[in-house]
Amino acid sequence: MAKKHILIVPGDGIGQEVTTVGKQVLDRIAEKFGHEFTYDEALIGHVAIEATGDPLPEETLVKMRASDAILFGAVGHPKYDNDPSAKVRPEQGLLKMRKELGLYANLRPIKLFDELLEASSIKPEILKGSDILFFRELTGDVYFGKRERLDDGNTAYDTMIYSKYEVERIARKAFEAARTRSKKLMSVDKANVLESSRLWREVIQKIAPEYPDVEVEHQFIDAAAMLLIKDPRRFDVVVTGNLFGDILTDEASQIAGSMGMLASASVGDSTGVYEPIHGSAHDITGKGVANPLASVLSAALLLDISFGLKAEADAIIAAVDKVLKDGFRTRDIANSETPADKILGTDAMGAELLKHL
Amino acid sequence: MAKKHILIVPGDGIGQEVTTVGKQVLDRIAEKFGHEFTYDEALIGHVAIEATGDPLPEETLVKMRASDAILFGAVGHPKYDNDPSAKVRPEQGLLKMRKELGLYANLRPIKLFDELLEASSIKPEILKGSDILFFRELTGDVYFGKRERLDDGNTAYDTMIYSKYEVERIARKAFEAARTRSKKLMSVDKANVLESSRLWREVIQKIAPEYPDVEVEHQFIDAAAMLLIKDPRRFDVVVTGNLFGDILTDEASQIAGSMGMLASASVGDSTGVYEPIHGSAHDITGKGVANPLASVLSAALLLDISFGLKAEADAIIAAVDKVLKDGFRTRDIANSETPADKILGTDAMGAELLKHL
Ligand SMILES: CC(C)[C@H](C(=O)O)[C@@H](O)C(=O)O
Ligand SMILES: CC(C)[C@H](C(=O)O)[C@@H](O)C(=O)O
Repeated sequence: MAKKHILIVPGDGIGQEVTTVGKQVLDRIAEKFGHEFTYDEALIGHVAIEATGDPLPEETLVKMRASDAILFGAVGHPKYDNDPSAKVRPEQGLLKMRKELGLYANLRPIKLFDELLEASSIKPEILKGSDILFFRELTGDVYFGKRERLDDGNTAYDTMIYSKYEVERIARKAFEAARTRSKKLMSVDKANVLESSRLWREVIQKIAPEYPDVEVEHQFIDAAAMLLIKDPRRFDVVVTGNLFGDILTDEASQIAGSMGMLASASVGDSTGVYEPIHGSAHDITGKGVANPLASVLSAALLLDISFGLKAEADAIIAAVDKVLKDGFRTRDIANSETPADKILGTDAMGAELLKHL
Repeated sequence: MAKKHILIVPGDGIGQEVTTVGKQVLDRIAEKFGHEFTYDEALIGHVAIEATGDPLPEETLVKMRASDAILFGAVGHPKYDNDPSAKVRPEQGLLKMRKELGLYANLRPIKLFDELLEASSIKPEILKGSDILFFRELTGDVYFGKRERLDDGNTAYDTMIYSKYEVERIARKAFEAARTRSKKLMSVDKANVLESSRLWREVIQKIAPEYPDVEVEHQFIDAAAMLLIKDPRRFDVVVTGNLFGDILTDEASQIAGSMGMLASASVGDSTGVYEPIHGSAHDITGKGVANPLASVLSAALLLDISFGLKAEADAIIAAVDKVLKDGFRTRDIANSETPADKILGTDAMGAELLKHL
């Protein structure tokens, strides 16, 4: 029996709606498997700016540090996107959280549910059997290098920067994972142009001999973005930097048919953060149609990775599989053949899921 | 009747094989339409390093400046990719050429030949009707910012940098093009994180009112990489920076079924450079199987953009269409249903094409 304290950080937009379902699922798991989960909630992003002026209030950070794991929603608001000169921005909260908690490894499993094989824009025969695990570095790169305006505001730069120890610690996580899977690791960089990528590649090459059972392949980011669509089965464990990882994993969401199905785990020095890879989606916020399954699957990752509760995580995945097999869909994963009464809103999908837990 | 001097720069790998066919097509066009094209040839990349020690010898640059247009092959060699510490690299020649010739606008039309609708890994019903024109900025960004090793070689950085005038000149080209098409422009950046992207977005927003007939949409690079696969028809004219453009256009090649079909034009202050978007492909070099159609279509772009010879360019595109309609394929665009006698090598595909010119 596990006794754990979980912090729910819904953030912006549909974050609130989907984490509500994620928490219901955690609750049900605690009940069913006899664990004791306590919860607290905290603000981040646009809602935190509105309430306190700060996208990551000190109070949130204190609660994060005091928790055993964090179930996270999403961050962002269109208001800032259309105002490039805004000084305080929701994303600053997200980036600061990653840095402060030392969340240097972002794991994004791209798992295809059989039932959704047809939901993708990619041909089923190309997709079938795809199973990818991304390791995106999360606390370095151009996300955290120095940035500045020069020349009376007419020039702007950002610094893409990596140190060897940063590459090494994420690479080791990826090599270890490759060992437990197909023993294939793809490292993605742009070493034909970038010095930071050449450093990246050097580190991978240096530690590779310590994992002689793992076959290493290097790809340039442009080629990888192309190959991911052309031949997704060629990918297994992938390790890459923060920016390239951001791009590749969003692109890879199309392999799973929808962003609404994909969960991620951010881990590192302390408390892990579990969140959907989708964003705040303000266009559908408040309509009750958001797909809660990515948050539910994030809860499964949380149980598995932070608490070591594998059977509990598997029970959640099986329940997701079951509702899909029963034909239930949220709007984003429905198609023209889905009967209208099988298209569920956020809460109804949550309720359907709970029936199988 | 036009009198023009064309420089052929085959570069590395399959560059030699495919530009040979491209040149044959230019020759035939000259003959048929009564133009006088003279040619010269020059070295770049790995072959130039081998011959002179310099990836862009001064002699090549002089010839480039003296020509009316350049038909380019590809640059790169696996030898350097596996040696991150190499000081002299083929790609330096390519980047220096872009900078020296002021080739700030890279145009990449993603045009789908009907016959190849099935060649893509994306579903035909998603693809049908896609027609995208990318404007990739080509002489700025992290490709040309300061890069360096620090800290005894343990840290490396690259600088992602843009000045307003650089964004403005490429944006104007894209806005102008949008006017001649569906009047839709998508600008891609990462303004929720990067200062250089916020500057990019500011410039787009500032000049947009001068093109009131063009509808502007901003997307983040991660979302764009996802949407491109989910819904390619949503894209029409796209403008983006050098790095994001590199990634997105390679990814977009899958819309056309193969890299082997895509041409690009790099234009700016002086002589334009026309080249396939594929690379040197050393794995198939010398085997005579490379698809020459991207080089052929690059020749068409050359005639159209640098010489204003639209009818001549259209004749080439029609010939490509015809050989595809006749069922001929190179290996990269063939599928399991292509009869063996319709699968042609590089030269045979060239010969087949010339029959229709
Ligand atoms: C919101 C944004 C800053 C963030 C990122 O780029 O990391 C998001 O796209 C993600 O992938 O978590
Ligand atoms: C070879 C490489 C440096 C080049 C680039 O990144 O620009 C290539 O990928 C391209 O797109 O022309």
